[in-house]
This record gives sequence, structure tokens and C-alpha cells, in this order.
Amino acid sequence: MTIEELDTPAVVVDLDILESNIKRMAEYCSEHHLRLRPHAKTHKSGVVAKMQLAAGACGVAVAKPDEAEVMAVAGIDDILVAYPIVTPRKAARIAELAMRAKMRVALDSIEAIECLSVAASERDVNIGILLEIDIGFARCGVGTAEASIALARAVEGKRGLRFDGLMFYPGHIKSPANEQAPLIEEVNRRLTSHYEAFACAGIPVDVVSGGSTPTALQSHYFEGVTEIRPGMYVFLDRNMLTIGVGTQEQCAISVLVTIVSNAVRSRAIIDGGSKTFSSDPLSVGDHRGYGLVLEQPQAEVIGFSEEHGHLDTSRCTRAPRVGERLRILPNHVCATINMHDRVFGIRGDRVEQIIQIDARGGVQ
Amino acid sequence: MTIEELDTPAVVVDLDILESNIKRMAEYCSEHHLRLRPHAKTHKSGVVAKMQLAAGACGVAVAKPDEAEVMAVAGIDDILVAYPIVTPRKAARIAELAMRAKMRVALDSIEAIECLSVAASERDVNIGILLEIDIGFARCGVGTAEASIALARAVEGKRGLRFDGLMFYPGHIKSPANEQAPLIEEVNRRLTSHYEAFACAGIPVDVVSGGSTPTALQSHYFEGVTEIRPGMYVFLDRNMLTIGVGTQEQCAISVLVTIVSNAVRSRAIIDGGSKTFSSDPLSVGDHRGYGLVLEQPQAEVIGFSEEHGHLDTSRCTRAPRVGERLRILPNHVCATINMHDRVFGIRGDRVEQIIQIDARGGVQ
Repeated sequence: MTIEELDTPAVVVDLDILESNIKRMAEYCSEHHLRLRPHAKTHKSGVVAKMQLAAGACGVAVAKPDEAEVMAVAGIDDILVAYPIVTPRKAARIAELAMRAKMRVALDSIEAIECLSVAASERDVNIGILLEIDIGFARCGVGTAEASIALARAVEGKRGLRFDGLMFYPGHIKSPANEQAPLIEEVNRRLTSHYEAFACAGIPVDVVSGGSTPTALQSHYFEGVTEIRPGMYVFLDRNMLTIGVGTQEQCAISVLVTIVSNAVRSRAIIDGGSKTFSSDPLSVGDHRGYGLVLEQPQAEVIGFSEEHGHLDTSRCTRAPRVGERLRILPNHVCATINMHDRVFGIRGDRVEQIIQIDARGGVQ
Repeated sequence: MTIEELDTPAVVVDLDILESNIKRMAEYCSEHHLRLRPHAKTHKSGVVAKMQLAAGACGVAVAKPDEAEVMAVAGIDDILVAYPIVTPRKAARIAELAMRAKMRVALDSIEAIECLSVAASERDVNIGILLEIDIGFARCGVGTAEASIALARAVEGKRGLRFDGLMFYPGHIKSPANEQAPLIEEVNRRLTSHYEAFACAGIPVDVVSGGSTPTALQSHYFEGVTEIRPGMYVFLDRNMLTIGVGTQEQCAISVLVTIVSNAVRSRAIIDGGSKTFSSDPLSVGDHRGYGLVLEQPQAEVIGFSEEHGHLDTSRCTRAPRVGERLRILPNHVCATINMHDRVFGIRGDRVEQIIQIDARGGVQ
């Protein structure tokens, strides 16, 4: 099958670029003696995860039991649930997986510790615990060294749990790489206060899990980090392009769409809207626009209805025709892929692979 | 099964409220001699569509061939594709459906006319055409009476097509009902110019399809409208509540979530983010917030990560506990339901029905 035979809208992944992105991050981690644990939330695909492991990743990070189960079924036996598990049903699913895979969970509360301990001890398994610490993003994570020591001690006293170390997420660092140094310095100040407290308390910290795609290639500047969890690096997107994390040639993903209407002056309507791309705004830079039209960058994606994308074509030298196809780089690749049950792996003009988004969809 | 047994996040639909919303809109339409053709994009469910038909709806509107096929399989035999069909593959799917259901398509280009005519004549079926006119939203639709007459004549000359009338979408009218009169007057001015041209040209306009949930109960003020296509009225949401289209007691939908972290001061994190709710901002009013916490309205949903919802609890008298459950009214119900493969119909505390979101997911 060729790209021309695909109906629209369709998410297409350039396999050459995907392979190259996977290799580049693996080489960076190898060079800096960091373990690479890609976050599977971006692709939600066992096939892509296995490509990452084949290139040297030690395992994966996931956000949900669903994702963990899909990865385990794909044969991945080292999984970090980088998300607090606080309900018995989810804890039971993690403990079941711990019977056949090395499972870790990141958490920040005594409730999560108790919940996981019950599930693990009932099944006579061990779950590794990373304590999440807040290093400035203000989402999850304990803030003080005292609080982290107290929770680490609580883990050590619980059956079925093993304290392995710390996790943090620098989600607030979305600036270009050459502007990150002062922010990384502040993160290091916070990390160091925790490390010193653990050293004083005599509690070994074997793992420090950090990283995100915007900071990934700066990970060697983060104090004490042993592994990183970038997700988006495999595909990249308009957010990453805007802050200079990768070039347009390194973006592996685009959404193939068709112009369905140009009846309104200075407008062209494409057959992809918020249910195809997500409505995630550009999260960096000037926050303008909902995608980059690769063939006609001067056509601005000014808004989405559910199934309509609104292009402003007033700056185009040639108005797009009804029926014409375009490829659009989405703002946020994780959100876009999550809209689809499958995406299409291409090489040149040929559709080589249909990649199932196995872990899309919900609990229950 | 009771609500307590549902894992989170879960979309729950109060069936009593759903039934009441369906009945209220059907009664309004009956009273005003309007046909009711609910837009199925909101629920994407054959089960809910059949509840609407049982209450008096004449058929459904859909946005995509996928949705049309699901509705046809559910036994619905009067379907309007309220979206321009411009590719041979999609036209073929519509024409196939026309072999067993009354199919109409709304369009605004000669390319769409030609594409549908080929597909319909090849299968010896007839597809009804509604010409979409732009009445101020500036998305799809021809603007001038001359252009609409020209396209109507083009339809009349094509094998397999039948000109049935006009369609419009007042998507720009999102103000409270008592502020809509001047906007409706402007729509009527535009509608009338088309009606007069069609009368002069001697082309009968049998159908005028209008409507949207914000304007639905004002439809009798729109000149010449014969049917309306509201979607969201079945569930309502925070957008509709904000402009006074329905009360909180009439909102049938909520998302059941669990607090997974409260380690950061003045924050509580829920296990639903943009992949559960969508990242649609509030599209009306002050555009603030990503949902209404029903049990604690003073907790503001200030942002979403993919799987984390960020609550600001600084104005709460009691900070939510880890493990506590909350129900949240989403900003935009169509976008939220589209994130899920199934939702849960409840009556009181009992889960009475699992509603499959049959038409979620993509083309191909």
C-alpha cells in the first residue's frame, strides 16, 4: 500500500526518522552512562517500545496499569509506573504484573505505600518504590528532605515493598537547551538537599529517575541521575521543534489530511480537528497555532472544531484546492496519537507497517 | 455493580437525566413542528441514538462515514452526513449506505458534488444533497445567494443526486438565550437572501437544517428552519451550564476521579487529565478552568497534564484526601466522551448500563 491509498485523516510515522531518533537517544545515554527508560505514554505501542529496547533501553516508564499490562504482554520485563497508585484495584494489577516482570512504582504518599504493600504482600511479590520529589513543577512529589526521609522509612517498614530511590519530573523546563542551565542549577540544589538527607540517614538511593524530552540531552548536567524517561523524542512534534529540540527533518510524525472546503474567503477547512489532533495548544513560544502545515507553512492552523481544522490561507500564494492533501505536524504528539487506534509506518511513499496503539483507551 | 465498584477515571451518565433531556428537546420540537435530528457526534453510540429516535427524533446527523455506518448498523435509516464528502472512498461508503438507508450529505463545492455523483450513480442509488450556507460562523458554507443557486443547479444536473435544501450551523452563537436575538436576526437576513434567490430561480427548498444546542430552544425564531441538529443537549456540560443552557441538575454526565496526590501545598492531583477530559478550554464566559468539581466547586481545575488533573485547593475549607473520589463536570462533553471506549449509565448508585462509544476511533 502507498500513502496515496490511505484515507484521511491518518497519522503517519516516518520509520527511517523514528529509527534514527531512537538510535540518537540511545547513543547519548550510552555515552553518558545513563539508563534509558522511555516513557511509553507517547506511543502506547508494544512494537515501538520493543524497537527502543532493541536499541538499548533498559525498560519502559508508563502512567497507568493498562499501559503496564500492554508492555508486559509485549515481553518487556522492567517497567516503572511513573504515577502514584492509590487504589486497591490498580495496586492489585501492578502486583499481578510483579509476578513476571520487575515492577517499580513512583509515589508520594503514605496512602499509596499502604495500598501497594497490601497488594504485594498478598501475592508474595516485591515492588520497587521510587519516591517522587517535587523539583519545581509543583504537580506531584514531596518538597522537603524531611518528608522524603519519612516516606522512605515508611516504605522500608512495609512488607512487599523495596525502597529503590527517587524520581522527579522537570516538566517546568520547556525552554531551549541553551537557556536551561539556571533552571537545572535550581533542580540540582533541590536534588542535593535530598541526597544529603538520605546520606545522613544511611538510606541508600540506588536509582534517581529524571528526564523529559526537552531536557533529555542535558541529563548529564542533572546531579546524580541514573536513568531518564523521555517520551516524545521518538517522534518529536511542533512543541519540540519550536524550542529547538530537534529539527523539522527529525520530526517522524505528521497527520495526513484533505481539504474539504474553501468556500469561505481566506479559509481552507481540513478533515482533522480536535478529535484528530487533540486541542492541545502550542505549549511553548507564542502559543499560536494548532499545527504546522508542512507543504504550506504560511497557511496558519488557527483553530479546531471537532472534525474541522480551520486554516487561514490569507498569506498563501496559492489557495489550497478542495480534495488536495496536506501533511500537518501536530503541536503535541502524545495527545494526537492517543486519539487514534492505529498509525501508519511509512518508508518513502510506501506504507510498511500498521502500528496498533495498543494501550489507548481506558481503565475498566 | 455500584458506582463504588467502578475504577477511575470513569465517565458516568445519569440515565434519569439523560432520558429527561431527550424528552424535553423532543417535546420542544413537537410543539414547534420542527423535525429533530440529533447530532450523534456527541455520544457516538447507537444505543443513545435509538433512545432519541424512540422519543421522536426523525433520524440522526453525523460527521463521518464511520459514524454513519455505526448508526445504520444500529437500525437508523435516515442519516444526514453534515460534513462535506470530497474523496472517492468516503463517497463510496455513503453510497453503499444509501442502498439501505435514506442518506443525505451537506456540501459546499463542485468537487463534493462530482465525487458523490460518481459513487451514487455507480451503485444506482440516490443521495439527497443539502447545500451548506455560511450564516456567520465562517467555517464551511457558501456565502452568496448566487453561489448557492449555481451549486444547486449543478446538483440538479448530476446523476444519483437530489437537491433537498439547505443546511447551516450557527456555531458563532454561544451567548445566553436572552442575548441571542440580534445574532439570530442577522442569520435570518442571510437565510432570507438565499430563500428569495431560490424562489426566483424556481428551485424548491424542502429542507432547511439548522440548530445547535446553544440555540436549540430558540429554533422557532430562525426563519424557515424545518429541522434542527443539536448534539450536546442529551448530556450538557460546563460550557452549556456557563451560558445558562440547562441547570446543573440537567447535566447528565460527570467524570469520576480519584485524588492521587496532595503532596504539593494547595494542590490536589486527580487521575484524569487531557487524555480523560480532552484539553478543551471553557469556550464561553471567562474561559477559566477545565471542569467543575461537583462536590467541591471551590476547588478549581487549573490545568491538565495527560493523566494528571491539577486542582488548586487553596480556597477549599477541607483539603481533599489521597484516595478520595470526586465527580467532575467536563467543559466539553463531545470531546470528553470521544476519549473513552465506553461510559457507564447509572441510576442512583447502581451501574445499570455500559454504553459502548461505538463510533469512536478513526477511518481506515
